[in-house]
Amino acid sequence: MWQLYQFPLCPFSRKVRLLMGEKGIAYDLVNEHPWEHRPGFRDINPAGRTPAMLNSERDLTLSDSVAICEYFEETEPAKPLFAGSATVRAEIRRLVAWFDSKFYAEVGAPLLQEKMIKRLFYRQTPDATMLRHAMRAANEHMEMIGSLLDHHRWLTGTTITMADLAAAAHISVADYLGGIDWAGHDGVHDWYAAMKSRPSFRPLLDERMGPLLPPPHYGDVNF
Amino acid sequence: MWQLYQFPLCPFSRKVRLLMGEKGIAYDLVNEHPWEHRPGFRDINPAGRTPAMLNSERDLTLSDSVAICEYFEETEPAKPLFAGSATVRAEIRRLVAWFDSKFYAEVGAPLLQEKMIKRLFYRQTPDATMLRHAMRAANEHMEMIGSLLDHHRWLTGTTITMADLAAAAHISVADYLGGIDWAGHDGVHDWYAAMKSRPSFRPLLDERMGPLLPPPHYGDVNF
Ligand SMILES: N[C@@H](CCC(=O)N[C@@H](CS)C(=O)NCC(=O)O)C(=O)O
Ligand SMILES: N[C@@H](CCC(=O)N[C@@H](CS)C(=O)NCC(=O)O)C(=O)O
Repeated sequence: MWQLYQFPLCPFSRKVRLLMGEKGIAYDLVNEHPWEHRPGFRDINPAGRTPAMLNSERDLTLSDSVAICEYFEETEPAKPLFAGSATVRAEIRRLVAWFDSKFYAEVGAPLLQEKMIKRLFYRQTPDATMLRHAMRAANEHMEMIGSLLDHHRWLTGTTITMADLAAAAHISVADYLGGIDWAGHDGVHDWYAAMKSRPSFRPLLDERMGPLLPPPHYGDVNF
Repeated sequence: MWQLYQFPLCPFSRKVRLLMGEKGIAYDLVNEHPWEHRPGFRDINPAGRTPAMLNSERDLTLSDSVAICEYFEETEPAKPLFAGSATVRAEIRRLVAWFDSKFYAEVGAPLLQEKMIKRLFYRQTPDATMLRHAMRAANEHMEMIGSLLDHHRWLTGTTITMADLAAAAHISVADYLGGIDWAGHDGVHDWYAAMKSRPSFRPLLDERMGPLLPPPHYGDVNF
């Protein structure tokens, strides 16, 4: 059985969980707070980051969410999430990288720092300027996603792919932290409602990060 | 013909160039300074980052170095750079991500900011504390690479892979900027000498970034 080292609001771990859910691969969750630098965690992932995966029967560890997702795509090819021509696959991977690096740097990481880490672990109040910048950036990303969805139902075409899972994983963390203003983004709203109603998404929406609560619309499929 | 938008010291573009060189795929270079935010570049890569690739005959653009490398691995499978079992491929991708995100954040990006952007574009002097931190981090990465090379000739085994190209690309930029102290890293030194002597590496070593010159050992295969 696979064990996934993560915490409920890690967007990279959510991406892996959505993939595991879509492919129907079983796993157990292990809570890990990378910012606490637990020494034993370095043996599983020397980078000290979540997500990391351990399969003790097979004596196998995996880390980095991109490497993990490609691994399960190769070893569990049913329900492919990188389906299409080489050009489509390049577009899927471009968008995954967009969310993992650009959305995360501009939106996810500042929201996690200001609204989760400061509040839960340092009992500090968030910096209003940082939050404003993150929310403005989130809005630009919503525009970008909206323009992709003008052309087709899912981000890269007529079938759901890893690009949709990556986008939804990162957006869900920002939404939990109150960073997404849904007004004026009807196309993205409908796409995200479809994502939320998938069985792979349910376990994520039901989880809470300690005493930090999401806004009421967060878990609602009809938001 | 492919056009690669890059600048000589972009480590992600170097990674792509090493792959193109190893696979023998022809391309032209186009100089692009992403920090100048040239409006036309957004049409090629909306993320505004180098590398990006354009093939005008085929009306195709690619961006994000990981997506680009996987694309050429799929479309030009001769001389594979992700060869091996799914487990080995996961290890190759873990290491690529290590250099692209951890090495770059801790070593490459601060060196580029302090020694290239500040000097060439703002005529400022580098911050000594930032440089010291980057060089200390570089040393830890060299230890990590050394421990991988205790077990085999290349980073993930007996054949050269994308992990070696990624590591060498990022190290070469840090070395150009005087950020690598080779003393005490014999294993890494020998591996890097082997990398430097490959025909794919020669064009990179011969290039200069404007008036900014590398240390004398930089281009030397017997350094
Ligand atoms: N490239 C990694 C990024 C993972 C990452 O940044 N995880 C965060 C938590 S969401 C982390 O562990 N940060 C702690 C650190 O970087 O030290 C991946 O895709 O898995
Ligand atoms: N994930 C991207 C990262 C590329 C990247 O960060 N490139 C740098 C130059 S080395 C850049 O364009 N920076 C400008 C910016 O981020 O605005 C890739 O792998 O291609």
